[in-house]
Amino acid sequence: MKNWKAGLAAFKALRSVASVSVCHSKVTWSLLLGGCIGTATVCHLRGQQVYAASRTEIKRSAWMTDPITDIVTLEENPTSMRTKMEMMIMRIQGEICKALEDVEGDKKFFVDRWQRKEGGGGISCVLQDGTVFEKAGVNISVVHGNLPPGAVQQMRAERGKILEGTSLPFFATGISAVIHPKNPNVPTIHFNYRYFEVTDQTGKTQWWFGGGTDLTPSYLDKQDVVHFHKTLKTACDKHSKDYYPKFKKWCDDYFTIKHRGEKRGVGGIFFDDLDNGAQADIFKFVTSCAEAVLPSYLPIVQKHKSDGYSYADRQWQLLRRGRYVEFNLIYDRGTKFGLMTPGARFESILMSLPLHAKWEYCHSPSAGSKEEELLNVLKNPQDWV
Amino acid sequence: MKNWKAGLAAFKALRSVASVSVCHSKVTWSLLLGGCIGTATVCHLRGQQVYAASRTEIKRSAWMTDPITDIVTLEENPTSMRTKMEMMIMRIQGEICKALEDVEGDKKFFVDRWQRKEGGGGISCVLQDGTVFEKAGVNISVVHGNLPPGAVQQMRAERGKILEGTSLPFFATGISAVIHPKNPNVPTIHFNYRYFEVTDQTGKTQWWFGGGTDLTPSYLDKQDVVHFHKTLKTACDKHSKDYYPKFKKWCDDYFTIKHRGEKRGVGGIFFDDLDNGAQADIFKFVTSCAEAVLPSYLPIVQKHKSDGYSYADRQWQLLRRGRYVEFNLIYDRGTKFGLMTPGARFESILMSLPLHAKWEYCHSPSAGSKEEELLNVLKNPQDWV
Repeated sequence: MKNWKAGLAAFKALRSVASVSVCHSKVTWSLLLGGCIGTATVCHLRGQQVYAASRTEIKRSAWMTDPITDIVTLEENPTSMRTKMEMMIMRIQGEICKALEDVEGDKKFFVDRWQRKEGGGGISCVLQDGTVFEKAGVNISVVHGNLPPGAVQQMRAERGKILEGTSLPFFATGISAVIHPKNPNVPTIHFNYRYFEVTDQTGKTQWWFGGGTDLTPSYLDKQDVVHFHKTLKTACDKHSKDYYPKFKKWCDDYFTIKHRGEKRGVGGIFFDDLDNGAQADIFKFVTSCAEAVLPSYLPIVQKHKSDGYSYADRQWQLLRRGRYVEFNLIYDRGTKFGLMTPGARFESILMSLPLHAKWEYCHSPSAGSKEEELLNVLKNPQDWV
Repeated sequence: MKNWKAGLAAFKALRSVASVSVCHSKVTWSLLLGGCIGTATVCHLRGQQVYAASRTEIKRSAWMTDPITDIVTLEENPTSMRTKMEMMIMRIQGEICKALEDVEGDKKFFVDRWQRKEGGGGISCVLQDGTVFEKAGVNISVVHGNLPPGAVQQMRAERGKILEGTSLPFFATGISAVIHPKNPNVPTIHFNYRYFEVTDQTGKTQWWFGGGTDLTPSYLDKQDVVHFHKTLKTACDKHSKDYYPKFKKWCDDYFTIKHRGEKRGVGGIFFDDLDNGAQADIFKFVTSCAEAVLPSYLPIVQKHKSDGYSYADRQWQLLRRGRYVEFNLIYDRGTKFGLMTPGARFESILMSLPLHAKWEYCHSPSAGSKEEELLNVLKNPQDWV
């Protein structure tokens, strides 16, 4: 609690210099901070004496930039789930971006803070064309306003819970990331943790959590997949022994490329509509899941990032990336929900797409190949723990 | 009429050797023919004395392989619109593939004849990774059976014309092609001409035609675009002066990448639900449109196929191909209809996707660049004739 309070105080002091970046504006948090140091006199003129001390706190809190919600609102509502989620995803975003930058080397995340005129905004952190990561995006968003009927129907897995055909006030916040590494031996990871509120026609506010983490390799390393699933299972088991088996199956079911009869990857966990329990308990579970992302994935990156690979391996990886695009654009509810939301920040939504993808007519791996080995697992999901 | 009757006779003679190829089976028409020559004795044993003479007729008819519908059925129903459409699209497929092969040089179309267990089938002709064409697909399909409710709703632009929520007997035949050239100065072309029949709940059969041809350049050559539109307009004007202006606007409206607020390309013509007139007249109009494809496009290919281009030009082309994928997978009704049809031949449907595509976060062309020049036209459709 102490950390984020200190962070909030620091950001409150700094908020006069917070700005909305637009695409290609190159306004990163470090630049913003650097800019402010350069205009220290201005800061002081505004009576922000706490500045120097707060900067240390900001670094410690490891946020990528200042939060979307106004500092005063956050500070005045510390026990609100909206505040708690925003603080949690800000922290996770910072931790993950920092860890990926450490692996990457010289290349840093471009931090793109955007606002949505209908309410709220987001922070998209993107690292493109790196040495280890071909395209890595770690986004948070905090949006609110009115949802059109089409988007309402994409919002919940159990649609019966919300009346259809109406426009409803909503609040949604979450973190969403897709990391596409360069080396075909390092899998792609995706995760997303989100919190929703919708006020229905009776004036009652429904809330629920959703999320998941899943892995998409181009080549199968069973040891990696077992490690990945075990880490997620451990995070789940702390909260309920029912979670992992239920959410593992849900993940396999959800990430299906229906027309091909194959899964997008080797799964992980996926859940939606989580509202059956104390809000604080579910929040703790979601936090555990978000905190499990790095330990589930980083060891795999470290293990394979320098593996040798052939031109043919790269071509196969590009074909798998094409399948990734198919799933995301045809079936993914998050993408549909995002693009249907008025004022959709499509660049952040489509950031999940790989830098490069390929489609070959009727490609089919040869019998007994390592490509076929992967495909067999995608067609027949396994139990990994 | 004479040509296709001769073709039919020849195919009838040959049908005992017609086979369904599967992906990567490399069964092309020429191989099939070659194979039969090698087994001439067998043919003769089957009493097919007409064989040698018929082979000449087949070459003249320029089909890529034998039709989907049984020869006897076609022969017994020469005035049926089903027969007339299948014969027309078989001829157009052959003419276009042959013309593209002539431009390409050594590389030939791979001819993939497939059957659909629910009824009907198709012929997919694909030329991949050529010198001039990066990926060219010219498909025909003749399918029938029962449509599930979801697919019924994707079938017509004016959905009110068919009752929703029911499964209905249907027949659909059409030709569909996408040509993605290698050189960024040669635009992509897409066309599709189709004929539908649906039997509604009252037992009445509704029929209609749909189709269109449109151009998607990576760089704008106004002269090319004017030539393209003029050719289509001439084809339309022969049948009705109302067609071109109406279908040009429909095309601009249809090929919209909504989330980006831009068109997929520089348009062309697009129409659906065409049923207000004599069936024979509409068929003649559709035939004129299909025959206009080559004269609208080939001169542009010839003009630019050897243009020099830079690495940067290629990267821009790949980004434009990414937008093409976005439109096709998110918005295109044909793709949705196709993938929702039970037993969908997804490889043929997704053949429209380019060999390579790219997504960069927040890419934006620099002011005054030739990339921006194209984008301005995509954001503000022009009148070209």
